[in-house]
Amino acid sequence: MTKPLLRVGLIGSGFMGKAHAFAYGTAAKVFDLPFAVELHTLADANPELARTAAEALGFARATADWRAMVASPEIDVVHVTAPNALHKEMALAAIAAGKHVHCEKPLAPRAQDAREMAEAAEARGVKTQMGFNYLCNPMLALAREMIQAGELGEIRSYRGIHAEDYMTDASAPFSFRNDPVGGGVMADLGSHALATAEFLLGPIARVMGDAVTAIAERPDGQGGRRPVETDDVARAFLRFESGASGSIEASWIAMGRKMQHDVEVYGSKGALLFTQERFNELHFYSAEDPKGRRGFRCIEAGPDHPPYGRFCVAPGHQLGFNDLKAIEMAGFLDALAGRAPEPFSFRQGLRIQGLVETVLASAREERWRDA
Amino acid sequence: MTKPLLRVGLIGSGFMGKAHAFAYGTAAKVFDLPFAVELHTLADANPELARTAAEALGFARATADWRAMVASPEIDVVHVTAPNALHKEMALAAIAAGKHVHCEKPLAPRAQDAREMAEAAEARGVKTQMGFNYLCNPMLALAREMIQAGELGEIRSYRGIHAEDYMTDASAPFSFRNDPVGGGVMADLGSHALATAEFLLGPIARVMGDAVTAIAERPDGQGGRRPVETDDVARAFLRFESGASGSIEASWIAMGRKMQHDVEVYGSKGALLFTQERFNELHFYSAEDPKGRRGFRCIEAGPDHPPYGRFCVAPGHQLGFNDLKAIEMAGFLDALAGRAPEPFSFRQGLRIQGLVETVLASAREERWRDA
Amino acid sequence: MTKPLLRVGLIGSGFMGKAHAFAYGTAAKVFDLPFAVELHTLADANPELARTAAEALGFARATADWRAMVASPEIDVVHVTAPNALHKEMALAAIAAGKHVHCEKPLAPRAQDAREMAEAAEARGVKTQMGFNYLCNPMLALAREMIQAGELGEIRSYRGIHAEDYMTDASAPFSFRNDPVGGGVMADLGSHALATAEFLLGPIARVMGDAVTAIAERPDGQGGRRPVETDDVARAFLRFESGASGSIEASWIAMGRKMQHDVEVYGSKGALLFTQERFNELHFYSAEDPKGRRGFRCIEAGPDHPPYGRFCVAPGHQLGFNDLKAIEMAGFLDALAGRAPEPFSFRQGLRIQGLVETVLASAREERWRDA
Amino acid sequence: MTKPLLRVGLIGSGFMGKAHAFAYGTAAKVFDLPFAVELHTLADANPELARTAAEALGFARATADWRAMVASPEIDVVHVTAPNALHKEMALAAIAAGKHVHCEKPLAPRAQDAREMAEAAEARGVKTQMGFNYLCNPMLALAREMIQAGELGEIRSYRGIHAEDYMTDASAPFSFRNDPVGGGVMADLGSHALATAEFLLGPIARVMGDAVTAIAERPDGQGGRRPVETDDVARAFLRFESGASGSIEASWIAMGRKMQHDVEVYGSKGALLFTQERFNELHFYSAEDPKGRRGFRCIEAGPDHPPYGRFCVAPGHQLGFNDLKAIEMAGFLDALAGRAPEPFSFRQGLRIQGLVETVLASAREERWRDA
Repeated sequence: MTKPLLRVGLIGSGFMGKAHAFAYGTAAKVFDLPFAVELHTLADANPELARTAAEALGFARATADWRAMVASPEIDVVHVTAPNALHKEMALAAIAAGKHVHCEKPLAPRAQDAREMAEAAEARGVKTQMGFNYLCNPMLALAREMIQAGELGEIRSYRGIHAEDYMTDASAPFSFRNDPVGGGVMADLGSHALATAEFLLGPIARVMGDAVTAIAERPDGQGGRRPVETDDVARAFLRFESGASGSIEASWIAMGRKMQHDVEVYGSKGALLFTQERFNELHFYSAEDPKGRRGFRCIEAGPDHPPYGRFCVAPGHQLGFNDLKAIEMAGFLDALAGRAPEPFSFRQGLRIQGLVETVLASAREERWRDA
Repeated sequence: MTKPLLRVGLIGSGFMGKAHAFAYGTAAKVFDLPFAVELHTLADANPELARTAAEALGFARATADWRAMVASPEIDVVHVTAPNALHKEMALAAIAAGKHVHCEKPLAPRAQDAREMAEAAEARGVKTQMGFNYLCNPMLALAREMIQAGELGEIRSYRGIHAEDYMTDASAPFSFRNDPVGGGVMADLGSHALATAEFLLGPIARVMGDAVTAIAERPDGQGGRRPVETDDVARAFLRFESGASGSIEASWIAMGRKMQHDVEVYGSKGALLFTQERFNELHFYSAEDPKGRRGFRCIEAGPDHPPYGRFCVAPGHQLGFNDLKAIEMAGFLDALAGRAPEPFSFRQGLRIQGLVETVLASAREERWRDA
Repeated sequence: MTKPLLRVGLIGSGFMGKAHAFAYGTAAKVFDLPFAVELHTLADANPELARTAAEALGFARATADWRAMVASPEIDVVHVTAPNALHKEMALAAIAAGKHVHCEKPLAPRAQDAREMAEAAEARGVKTQMGFNYLCNPMLALAREMIQAGELGEIRSYRGIHAEDYMTDASAPFSFRNDPVGGGVMADLGSHALATAEFLLGPIARVMGDAVTAIAERPDGQGGRRPVETDDVARAFLRFESGASGSIEASWIAMGRKMQHDVEVYGSKGALLFTQERFNELHFYSAEDPKGRRGFRCIEAGPDHPPYGRFCVAPGHQLGFNDLKAIEMAGFLDALAGRAPEPFSFRQGLRIQGLVETVLASAREERWRDA
Repeated sequence: MTKPLLRVGLIGSGFMGKAHAFAYGTAAKVFDLPFAVELHTLADANPELARTAAEALGFARATADWRAMVASPEIDVVHVTAPNALHKEMALAAIAAGKHVHCEKPLAPRAQDAREMAEAAEARGVKTQMGFNYLCNPMLALAREMIQAGELGEIRSYRGIHAEDYMTDASAPFSFRNDPVGGGVMADLGSHALATAEFLLGPIARVMGDAVTAIAERPDGQGGRRPVETDDVARAFLRFESGASGSIEASWIAMGRKMQHDVEVYGSKGALLFTQERFNELHFYSAEDPKGRRGFRCIEAGPDHPPYGRFCVAPGHQLGFNDLKAIEMAGFLDALAGRAPEPFSFRQGLRIQGLVETVLASAREERWRDA
């Protein structure tokens, strides 16, 4: 029995565009996908760029006209990995054309735009996904499974961090990341911290935010200086609907940190520690281990932690970042085939974006806000 | 030349009482103390307890009458390690008798009491010290030295944690730790996190607190249940006078954690990571290391980090917790001899206690407060 | 300009067969390969198995007749991932047909067979590669670069380990791994330890081996027991031609270890530590760091460490095991295109196999042997 | 009831002399020692040195005449921490005078001398101890207890290392450590690795040694160069009487390593990892943990691991190196009081020294030797 064809249109060929293309390549081999995937067309800013990228990434066609591509009846699903400012327009156009859409985070600079996108997709009946790739890690799936199964008992407190250092250089010019609309670290990295928190512990009910501009001005690229208003480091206290309390922090000026996406979950019977810096490990403390023999144990990813076994039959060999994207893509295709719910839809993305805005509003107003 | 005699009176022989006695034993050998120390009298709750402890800990005399002891002209310095509720009365009596006083933290349940104590000591002209032992670690001294020397550049952000798990058991009865006056984790552990933060980065200017009671009630020890009002986990956003921002967290329900007193300091040129779990190490990232060769380096304690060399001439052998107390005691004696300022006086303890109260008030009022 | 076509025939679809197919998929997108790769035919033990695997792994055709496939003029390169016992026959047939051959390790159970294979390939003028995937890690490339550039000074000593635990279960039946010809842990894992040692420090000159059968007999699969003669743990002292000394150890009964492929290199000016358990890190100690600031620094893989940047433009995201195989495959294709020497040819594989046999012979004879 | 008096005479006040004095100070407070200890006399190379040290370390008297001191009826126990070359003469004199003797390792440069010392002590009926301080660690006691209780199942393999870097500097002059008689790293550090191996797994039956001089000559201190014959790095394969196999390595040129005293023990049901670099931890893997939840767990030292609780009632506070010496001293005093067997007597020290010589002889002769 041949599989139905899925014709993919990709907009953008930067960091995430490449990652999507890699992910399809890997997913097609690693998973038993419900579709025969055809990398149909790659759209980029100009014909030359598009052609080169299409060739490199295995797309059959290239175009500089993303509008035509998303409207084409030959395309089934559109991947939006263009600059953030364009996400909304592109996604809405694709949705209007009845295409399923995978959009990199953030959906749009403002939650109100994100809401428009989520609602458009739902109204049109197309499926959507956002790129919250860290959540595709088997070790975080294990963490959630353990929490939900009660292996940690009642969850009492949580700490989440996402810190990197790509904005530490004060001499680097003002960029889209510093744009007062949609920029800032809570949006860029804090969104991951918030998504992971809800992935593991369920809905956040209230937040109290803190947002700090650590590098007050940056070169404007034209010989002058431009004041920065967006957050370089941002924090939030959290209350979960479950009753647990917690906190998150996001920083892009954490010198030396390349991928400190950390999680600590403390329950009445156990605890979990995780860091994306060593994301093939999950550290588990069980208060039920014998006295004198207790300690955080380092569980290494292996075939016991699906879908790791799809990638490698032996434990300890480790997945890489691009493998997480392949898992993400496979999840999306399962959703398209009706095999499973959307792993992280626009609706969920909207939720995160709303949380980001609520945290920032709370920080600005210096008061707790319902989430 | 013979050294002047210093006659020590110790009140209490529990965890910290022992630690003080051990510290004198070690300090006398490891350091060139300015005094010949005589462990003169140990006071405890009853004569039997006092006698046994005095014998075990090397005190010449024992008494159940601490008032007489602190008043005795044969005592030069009094160590208060009795239950927290008694600190104030004991310290004030000792101060009134003109004795130098070392008091375990907290000075008193309320900052106003602590203020009274600090002022009494200053008025009477006696020297004081509090037991902020973690600050006596050579690796934290190194951290401070590096920060002050500018090795990290301008400090931008800070994260401090002190989490343990000794209150995780919800079936453990209500105790002094749960007392609405002076109890709670921000006072017990958060005080360390706050002290370390100011030790490294200087004065905190503003705080926004968060305080959570995770175990809502506990057995009252009489067959009933008693509601708990104190904080089991507490957090604060921080603004330092230097302009840096940060956060701290304190928890005594962090299952599995025995001594997570963590510090992360991020600057414009480097970063430091420290955990009391491995307190003979300091991790340092320098942005000035060559490209492709950068990373957090694990500096192991050694003779390059005074006063480590006093304990051991070879690096990597490691200090223990009791050694930190010995360093604390030696610092106090240096202050008594006028060799050095008081390392952590009642005045400083009052500052921390004030911070604790400000954090808790801020949490209660749900608003930022000046510190 | 279109790329020349490279038509791939793969024999086997198990652990390594899959890994090869995944690697082609990834390499085609991540690298600018010199060929347009066509996954032409997959051969496996029977038609059904071959067809299913071909479909899953993206091969256009399937066959149960590997002989026909390797002889076919439509195939340019043959990948041998069938059981070890068949490697020689398959590779020789492919070589005879003038095909380039990638063969998983070991080349053959005996070095004399491996020699025949290497010589046949050289005589026929085809290119060869073996699957020493761990060596494809950018962090080991960095290690070698640092050693060769003298960043560690004169290399004085070395320690290598490859330990896992997949043979710990004494009730698991006797298998091909226990076959006196070609089996044993020095061949299976020690070969990696030896290859890494020579990769980093250059040729080994002399060895003294130690080989131990820890599980003396295993079920024979027919209700009886069968004595085991092969090594479960094996060790060697090493002398490198450079003058450095070292040791390696291989174990497949190291309970709890999933991937302890460790390296420690000590020089007169610095040292390196590496473990495959955290293979996106390299730990570097420089004696030239300032006094009091020295320590092993944890270098995280990033774009500074090629070809990491091909996979991801941001540091800290991490490669996975399958990415190492993609690097391996890209290296082979570069060799086929004459862009670069063969990264790990049959000749080099023969070298490792010879070392394995020399270590085992030395262990048996209980004397040092020239390598 | 008053305790019997134990009058201590100490020879030497360097690294280890100080450590012994510190240890008595601590042990007297931490443990319920069977004796009232009097630090009676400190003997050193000249009167001035002795007096200064005695004062600093709390000894009542000082002397430059160790012979008189060990002969004095006022001394009950003699501690020998003078240079290695003098150990024998001093210990024999003390034994002859009927004194109990604690001697730092090595007993003497040659095993035959060590034998003489052990036999003299036994003949005279005095008790002896050697300073194998690492074995006094509660976490190694725990490891042994777990092994002996069968928690790891049948022990199959072992790896021990003791590596430091205090001899890496090739420009440092020839010293007593390089003396062909008694010098070398196998004697200095390998002795620890051997002692730990037998402490944990019981008697070693056979060894195959490897000894390497990495720095071929050193300044002779007189403007010339002197060839070095002793080992800078040495290794041994081991066979234990239990049937387990293993290896040890000793190095004092392991750049960057300050205290790599590592142990790995692999059994049929579990495994243990330990490093002195983090000696308040023991890592334990149990194959009996549930599938998917297995991993090395980091057990932190606490009151569950005696005698930790003597030092501190709370877990995670950590012991330091000097605390290990205090445990050592308390063990010796228990032996003197007949409460317990000698923890590490001259007889056991002789055993280790014999092993060292056997390893070195084996290395020289390039053949296995019975141990």
